Amino acid sequence: MSRVAVIGAGAVGCYYGARLAEAGHEVHFLMRRDYEAVQAHGLRIISKDGDLHLPHPHIARDPSTIGVVDWVICALKATAIEQARALVAPCVGPSTRILVLMNGLGLEDRFAEWFGAGRIFGGLAFTCINRGDPGVVHHIDYGPITIGHLLDDPAEVDTALSLWARARVETARAPSLLSGRWTKLCWNIPFNGLAVTAGGITTDRILADPALRTAVTALIIEVAAAGNADLDAHGSAVRLDGATTARNMVAATEAMAAYRPSTMIDFVEGQPMEVEAIFEEPLRRASALGVATPLLSLVTGQMRALNTRARSGAEIDRGPR
Amino acid sequence: MSRVAVIGAGAVGCYYGARLAEAGHEVHFLMRRDYEAVQAHGLRIISKDGDLHLPHPHIARDPSTIGVVDWVICALKATAIEQARALVAPCVGPSTRILVLMNGLGLEDRFAEWFGAGRIFGGLAFTCINRGDPGVVHHIDYGPITIGHLLDDPAEVDTALSLWARARVETARAPSLLSGRWTKLCWNIPFNGLAVTAGGITTDRILADPALRTAVTALIIEVAAAGNADLDAHGSAVRLDGATTARNMVAATEAMAAYRPSTMIDFVEGQPMEVEAIFEEPLRRASALGVATPLLSLVTGQMRALNTRARSGAEIDRGPR
Repeated sequence: MSRVAVIGAGAVGCYYGARLAEAGHEVHFLMRRDYEAVQAHGLRIISKDGDLHLPHPHIARDPSTIGVVDWVICALKATAIEQARALVAPCVGPSTRILVLMNGLGLEDRFAEWFGAGRIFGGLAFTCINRGDPGVVHHIDYGPITIGHLLDDPAEVDTALSLWARARVETARAPSLLSGRWTKLCWNIPFNGLAVTAGGITTDRILADPALRTAVTALIIEVAAAGNADLDAHGSAVRLDGATTARNMVAATEAMAAYRPSTMIDFVEGQPMEVEAIFEEPLRRASALGVATPLLSLVTGQMRALNTRARSGAEIDRGPR
Repeated sequence: MSRVAVIGAGAVGCYYGARLAEAGHEVHFLMRRDYEAVQAHGLRIISKDGDLHLPHPHIARDPSTIGVVDWVICALKATAIEQARALVAPCVGPSTRILVLMNGLGLEDRFAEWFGAGRIFGGLAFTCINRGDPGVVHHIDYGPITIGHLLDDPAEVDTALSLWARARVETARAPSLLSGRWTKLCWNIPFNGLAVTAGGITTDRILADPALRTAVTALIIEVAAAGNADLDAHGSAVRLDGATTARNMVAATEAMAAYRPSTMIDFVEGQPMEVEAIFEEPLRRASALGVATPLLSLVTGQMRALNTRARSGAEIDRGPR
C-alpha cells in the first residue's frame, strides 16, 4: 500500500483519489473549497461504476501537514500551474513519484524542471466528472486513465500501473506520454473549445449541429497533424491517425449523456479557463513546426479573447449609440 | 429628381437616404423606432464626409402612405426578410426599381420572386455606420456603394448609378451582382463572425490578435473559393482572388477605427442576428457545390448556437452541481 497525496482536490482529484483510498491506499487530499463539507460529511462519489462514501478521508489545507509520500497526484487546474511547485514540494522526498493528472500540453516539463524528469508521469483521464454540492462528485461516464512516463521508461510505467492494480479504475499504458497528450487534446480542443465558443453548450448539442460536427472532425484532424509533427520533432516513431481518432471520438462522445466540459463550466461561471495549456501551447508548437492549423488558430483566438474578458471582468465593448 | 422610399430606416437606410435627399431627391423614410425623434428634431447625420441635418424629412409609419415611388431602397435587417414583401409592395408600381441594400446572400432572389427580376438591384455598402441616439446616425468610415443588377444588365446599372450621380456617395459598378455579394461576404463572414464569437469585440481587437488575424485570412480565402464555385455554377466568368481580397480587406480594416459590426451590436444587445443570410446560405451553397469550408462551418455553427440562445432568451446550460 502506498502513501498518496492528491494535490488539487477538484472533481478529478477527488474521484481518482477516492478510488485509490477504496483500494486500501493511504490517500491525503489537499482541499480548499470543500474542506469543511468533507470534514463534516465525508467525501461522496456518485458513480456509474458504483457509488462510494469515504466518511473520514485524510484531508489537509496545507501540503506540509501531509509530508513526504510515495505518489503525488497533481490534479490542479492548469491555470494554477505557477502555484503547483510550492503545493507539491512539501510532499516530495527522494523516491516520490508524481503523476500529473491535468489537462494540456507541456505541464510535465515544468514538473521535470522542478523535481527531475525521472519521477514524472502524465495521466490522461478520459472521463466525465463534475463537482456537485461541496463534498460530492458526480462520475457520469467513462473513467479510464492512460498513463505515460515523461522519459517513456516502460518499467516506470509498470510501477505507475501497479498503484492502480486494485483500484476500481481501468488503466492503460500510453504508447508514449507525448502521443497520449496529443490524443487527449484531440478531444479537449474541439469539445472544450466549441462548448465555450458556441455560448456554453453541452457536448450533445455540439454533435447535434451538422456544422459544428463537421468542425469537430476537421479540428481533430488538424490537431493530430500538429501532434504528429511534434512527435517527429521529439524523435518519437508513434503517430496518430487523425481520421480514425475523429471517428472514434465523435462516436464515443455521441454515446455519452449531455456533458459539460470543465472549460465550459469555467466559462459560464466566469472563472479563468485552461486556455494556455489546452490551446496556446499546441498552437505554438504547430506554428513553430510549420503545420497549418487555421481552425485551431481560430478557436484559440476566440478562447483567448473570451478568457481575457472573463479574467478582467470587463464589459463587452459598447461603442457610440 | 426621383421619388424614393427607404424601407427600413436603420443606420444604413437613414444614411444613404439622407444623402439622396441632400442631392435633391424626394426621399420618404419608413420609420418605427425613431419616428417621434425625427418628427421632433429631424434626422441628423454625423459623417466623416460632412455632417447633414434634414429638419423635416418625409417620414411614414406605413408604406401605403408613401405610395408608388421610382426607387425603393430596402435597408431592412436580413432577419426581417419575411416582412419585406408586405412593407415594399405598397411602394411598387409598374416602373418602380428596387435596390436591396441588405447584408447577405440570396435576398435579391426573394425580391425577384415577389416583384420580377428585371427591377431588382443589389447594393453593397462598404461602410462603417452605427445608430446613435434616436434620429442620429454616425457615419464613421468608408461609404462607397457598389451596385449590381440581378440580371447584370449594364444599362440598368447605369440607371441605378444615375440616381446617385449628385449625391455625396461614391458609387461603383459590381463586375456582377453575385461576385459583389461574395466579395462583401469576404468581409462580413470573418469580421461580423469573429466580433461575435470572440465575445463581442471590435474589429481592431480581432486584428490585434495574431491567431484571429490568421483565421480572418484563412476564412476569406475559403469564402472566396466558395464564391468562385457559386459563380461558376451560375455561368459567370467573374472570379475572386481570395489571397488578394484577404490582403486588401485586412489592410482596409486595419486602417479603420475600432468598429462594431452590426451583427456584434445585435449580439451584445440580445437581438436576432443575420445568421441565415450572412452564414447559412453561403455555407449551404458551398456544401452543395462540394467546396470544403471547415472554418465557415465552424463559425456558422457557433453563430447558429449563439443566435438560438439570443432568440430564446434561454439560460446557458447548467448541469448537475
